[in-house]
Amino acid sequence: MIIVLKSGTPTDEITQISEGLRNTWGVTVEKSIGEHKVILGMIGDTSTIDRMLIQELSPWIEQVLRVEKPFKRVSREFRYGEASEVVVPTPNGDVYFGEHHPIVVTAGPCSVENEAMIVETAKRVKVAGAKFLRGGAYKPRTSPYAFQGYGESALDLLAAAREATGLGIITELMDAADLPAVARVADVIQIGARNMQNFALLKKVGAQDKPVLLKRGMSATIDEWLMAAEYLLAAGNPNVILCERGIRTFDSKYARNTLDLSVIPVLRSLTHLPIMIDPSHGTGKSEYVAPMALAAIAAGTDALMIEVHPNPAKALSDGPQSLTFDKFDRLVQEMSVLGKVVNRWSIPELVTSV
Amino acid sequence: MIIVLKSGTPTDEITQISEGLRNTWGVTVEKSIGEHKVILGMIGDTSTIDRMLIQELSPWIEQVLRVEKPFKRVSREFRYGEASEVVVPTPNGDVYFGEHHPIVVTAGPCSVENEAMIVETAKRVKVAGAKFLRGGAYKPRTSPYAFQGYGESALDLLAAAREATGLGIITELMDAADLPAVARVADVIQIGARNMQNFALLKKVGAQDKPVLLKRGMSATIDEWLMAAEYLLAAGNPNVILCERGIRTFDSKYARNTLDLSVIPVLRSLTHLPIMIDPSHGTGKSEYVAPMALAAIAAGTDALMIEVHPNPAKALSDGPQSLTFDKFDRLVQEMSVLGKVVNRWSIPELVTSV
Amino acid sequence: MIIVLKSGTPTDEITQISEGLRNTWGVTVEKSIGEHKVILGMIGDTSTIDRMLIQELSPWIEQVLRVEKPFKRVSREFRYGEASEVVVPTPNGDVYFGEHHPIVVTAGPCSVENEAMIVETAKRVKVAGAKFLRGGAYKPRTSPYAFQGYGESALDLLAAAREATGLGIITELMDAADLPAVARVADVIQIGARNMQNFALLKKVGAQDKPVLLKRGMSATIDEWLMAAEYLLAAGNPNVILCERGIRTFDSKYARNTLDLSVIPVLRSLTHLPIMIDPSHGTGKSEYVAPMALAAIAAGTDALMIEVHPNPAKALSDGPQSLTFDKFDRLVQEMSVLGKVVNRWSIPELVTSV
Amino acid sequence: MIIVLKSGTPTDEITQISEGLRNTWGVTVEKSIGEHKVILGMIGDTSTIDRMLIQELSPWIEQVLRVEKPFKRVSREFRYGEASEVVVPTPNGDVYFGEHHPIVVTAGPCSVENEAMIVETAKRVKVAGAKFLRGGAYKPRTSPYAFQGYGESALDLLAAAREATGLGIITELMDAADLPAVARVADVIQIGARNMQNFALLKKVGAQDKPVLLKRGMSATIDEWLMAAEYLLAAGNPNVILCERGIRTFDSKYARNTLDLSVIPVLRSLTHLPIMIDPSHGTGKSEYVAPMALAAIAAGTDALMIEVHPNPAKALSDGPQSLTFDKFDRLVQEMSVLGKVVNRWSIPELVTSV
Repeated sequence: MIIVLKSGTPTDEITQISEGLRNTWGVTVEKSIGEHKVILGMIGDTSTIDRMLIQELSPWIEQVLRVEKPFKRVSREFRYGEASEVVVPTPNGDVYFGEHHPIVVTAGPCSVENEAMIVETAKRVKVAGAKFLRGGAYKPRTSPYAFQGYGESALDLLAAAREATGLGIITELMDAADLPAVARVADVIQIGARNMQNFALLKKVGAQDKPVLLKRGMSATIDEWLMAAEYLLAAGNPNVILCERGIRTFDSKYARNTLDLSVIPVLRSLTHLPIMIDPSHGTGKSEYVAPMALAAIAAGTDALMIEVHPNPAKALSDGPQSLTFDKFDRLVQEMSVLGKVVNRWSIPELVTSV
Repeated sequence: MIIVLKSGTPTDEITQISEGLRNTWGVTVEKSIGEHKVILGMIGDTSTIDRMLIQELSPWIEQVLRVEKPFKRVSREFRYGEASEVVVPTPNGDVYFGEHHPIVVTAGPCSVENEAMIVETAKRVKVAGAKFLRGGAYKPRTSPYAFQGYGESALDLLAAAREATGLGIITELMDAADLPAVARVADVIQIGARNMQNFALLKKVGAQDKPVLLKRGMSATIDEWLMAAEYLLAAGNPNVILCERGIRTFDSKYARNTLDLSVIPVLRSLTHLPIMIDPSHGTGKSEYVAPMALAAIAAGTDALMIEVHPNPAKALSDGPQSLTFDKFDRLVQEMSVLGKVVNRWSIPELVTSV
Repeated sequence: MIIVLKSGTPTDEITQISEGLRNTWGVTVEKSIGEHKVILGMIGDTSTIDRMLIQELSPWIEQVLRVEKPFKRVSREFRYGEASEVVVPTPNGDVYFGEHHPIVVTAGPCSVENEAMIVETAKRVKVAGAKFLRGGAYKPRTSPYAFQGYGESALDLLAAAREATGLGIITELMDAADLPAVARVADVIQIGARNMQNFALLKKVGAQDKPVLLKRGMSATIDEWLMAAEYLLAAGNPNVILCERGIRTFDSKYARNTLDLSVIPVLRSLTHLPIMIDPSHGTGKSEYVAPMALAAIAAGTDALMIEVHPNPAKALSDGPQSLTFDKFDRLVQEMSVLGKVVNRWSIPELVTSV
Repeated sequence: MIIVLKSGTPTDEITQISEGLRNTWGVTVEKSIGEHKVILGMIGDTSTIDRMLIQELSPWIEQVLRVEKPFKRVSREFRYGEASEVVVPTPNGDVYFGEHHPIVVTAGPCSVENEAMIVETAKRVKVAGAKFLRGGAYKPRTSPYAFQGYGESALDLLAAAREATGLGIITELMDAADLPAVARVADVIQIGARNMQNFALLKKVGAQDKPVLLKRGMSATIDEWLMAAEYLLAAGNPNVILCERGIRTFDSKYARNTLDLSVIPVLRSLTHLPIMIDPSHGTGKSEYVAPMALAAIAAGTDALMIEVHPNPAKALSDGPQSLTFDKFDRLVQEMSVLGKVVNRWSIPELVTSV
């Protein structure tokens, strides 16, 4: 923390502020006197001090600047500059998320609708190369009158799809009360954009063992997103994957959100956590999914989440952004070409009939 | 819902789309053929239909436009254009929130810190004219390392302050698991900005009886905010007050948020629910609170929430935006002058010793 | 400027950076060594130094923080904390804009349409109490196919209205080539929101004598706005009025813009320049104009700009946000009540026939 | 245009509104009567009608919806779904911008600083594969005290670099008064982000022959951007290239802007104009340039603009986002690999000494 004092701050006041800093927060204070300003540096662990509180010490304080990043455990420095890897056990074996591993593809419908569709989708996306099946049992919807997901019964269908294909399952948790049920089925628990700062939920999910996929809030800053991840790590769960899914900008006329691929290199420099991109929610239109998925690979993503539905026109939610099986096959084909160029594609094992 | 078809849509396709609309959603379809476009109007209850799903019916569909507002129970039309009033019983008697009642003032510290400070604050703000005491027991904080509120023990202190002054209590609920404890003490349950779209929480709070103060999410649209309120009403609780507390804009350098007073007349025209303004969180700086509180009155607010702390410089959270007792007294004095001019101020009963 | 170095920066590097700062920018450098960080303070005039350039001096530099405000001449400190007043000579006498003067009302149509309408409007708004007539000769329109204003011939009509009523004229300049023509008629030259950072135009308008009304860009930060004003003052013109006219937020469904009244106390603390509020463009709907105009007065504005049109339904532009004469009369009546309460309303001289 | 009337609109009123529409705008009106709403469709050329004006016809009008896109000449439909190509003659031959041509690389410093640096840079980027040299003679700067570019003398230096290498020149025009001088040297005239809605400038640049690079305003919607391009085409100049250079979002802490790559497929579907991406301004940090340039290629861009400086640490502006020659060489090498995969890279002619 750096405290900038106003021009003309009396010497007595400077002494008093320095005392206040020392006594209240137990830090060492270093003074730097310049032509226009006096600057006080707080030395010690200042990461938990509220900047605003310092401001109140004296009307002579012009600005309080934080010079340390607010996050710790998620920071790249915390792991001495190394990327972390998140290992997720699935029936088909361990899947690794991380900068030094092949890109992981997650696919599936927005909502789980019935057993036939979810099992069929799982089989098809597995053949194409996906390692995880996504599918919503609980759906956050703007309207209380819109389809809210089939809840617990949908979890059973996800379990059936997992059983049938060996794919890992990623599904969203909205209510801590559903945590036991969701954790029974999910290999990765998703926290949705609207709950990114639902701190009560973060604490509970951070206190259990399943890996967590943390979606970015639609207007969250990068600091806020990383601090939400910090809640998970601080509660004891180091297995966190960050998922960009489109931010809100002034342009929602042609795409549902603005997929922010520029966050990839920024996250890479700030955090050791793996990065996933969701071009389906990120754009809201199936025709934009392929160019954005390819661009995400070129930009360095570690994973992709893509909505696939046997019949998008009949989907109970988010049909317009879902790919058909055929389109998904073609996209994976294109992704594999690019993925190989950037050395992030796994040589597929021979796929036998599923 | 209005469906605009692309130029040159074949007649067969138009027929097929019309059939699709009728069969899938049970609506009547009316066709309007123009020089450039064919337009289909869906007649019937279309409020729960996902606009995107319709889009997927055919590639010839250019746009699907919703012409009905997405909300129902919160809409002004739902009450035939009349404002609703929310009546909150408190030890000192019923307090009315609504367009045809005097402005209700809520005051108190950001966090409940100890019994002495909360009881003292309650007594002082009561004398000044407040009807409710605000105070956080559970605090949503960006950092897991920042002070998180004293939780259940703070609720007991709020109960003591209520006992001592007869003021109603407004306090935030962050976790549904705390609902019984919070509801035991609170006269109004606050849902914070970060939980505005925590639908699991909204459903549970909507299913109980205590009135709810719903703060606006910091990047929420008005529709999203009203739809969050709709969750509460749809779950059975009609006693909802909307609270504007500052939105996020590109300018966070000089104020913490941008307090959006322009939302007052907009809400007035859209909804029957009472409106509260929180200039303390809305600006983040005590020196901006007074001009914004006065402006809110001139713009027509039904209630105000103002942070007051016996010693802002020592507050455990949000000190910089809190008023001292003396500043609060002066502000209420100024507000009363304006409040009388707009006929929204109650003639204070003679205040006896507290 | 404060330069924060990364943990572990070698002593040699620190010396070299300090040398670089001294040699490149001729400043004094003060070092503050802490437990985790080393901090260098640049002492001297650093206001014109590009923060980014410093960053490039060494990879060991973690952050470069500006601790001085980027603006000078517009800052409140530049006038030792006093407000400035902008005096505009009009045929009816000098009009004063400033914190210690009555609120100045400007009114008139969006566009000048014909002589009858502009003269009639001028007469009516003068009777109601306006000191200035607004009216666009050149109109910035999103579409090249929309009405672009009547240009130079409209300027003549404004001159006629000025002649007929003695009101001052405020009209927008979009093209420096039109400056002589506009300056001949206008008493105050308006720079519109879209041209707030048209630096070529600012330099030319700053180099002439007529007072300038500088509208805020719709997504401009306060710093950017004040720096645009700084261009005007730096070019020699101290007579600048700042006009808030609504910012862009995520909510444009119910109002055209989000009128940011919260900027009033912020500007008051940062700058000595007078402040005007335009609730007509700021909301885009005539029914929201009155509550916002009243709130602006309560918040402390120095001036208001309100669109008035003899027949809003037939206006060539912005009809929906214009008041009729009768509605304007009623609004001025309401404003006068509030204006008197805050001691910012002039006792009207007896109005004789116009 | 579609006009939605409120429930219960009287028949007389409907007739009167229909008459009003017909008489005022000479359109045909078609009525569609539903259970809750009556809808009027305006048939004819409605593209220049102000939506707000219609709203004012009657208080019974609930919403006016535009169903046609506001732009014409820039729309993909205007060219029957085909992409246009912009051909720019340069001393080294014609360069083609467009969807069916190899990606065009533009490179050079932010500002032209002196002859040695600009000629050296031109030679080096030519060898690497660039077809155009960028370099600012006139610089839009937030502060009036910051370096404003060397102006006309810098244009001479660009001419010298053009002469020495045969590269085309792209440079920014800020003031219409400089148009003759800029047009003498520039092969493509750049309109910067801050002037995107400087309509006076757009009209003048649209009325001359040199191709135009139109940068996106930092908070502009896609419609506004395309309408700005429409100004150029409407004024007679069809040779327009659209350049995305980063939008403003809530996150400016780690990157200067948020480069919006998601706009590429959206523009592709809406307009026939070629697309350029500027990852240098778009991110503001040299280390983010390479991943974003590669992602832009994967997403389908037609051209790239990249800042290159012989010594970024000494650059007079925007050093932190500039690549050194060596880094640029490496980036072009990486881009060529990806460019070939997507079939958008030209087989380089053998490069001889420059």
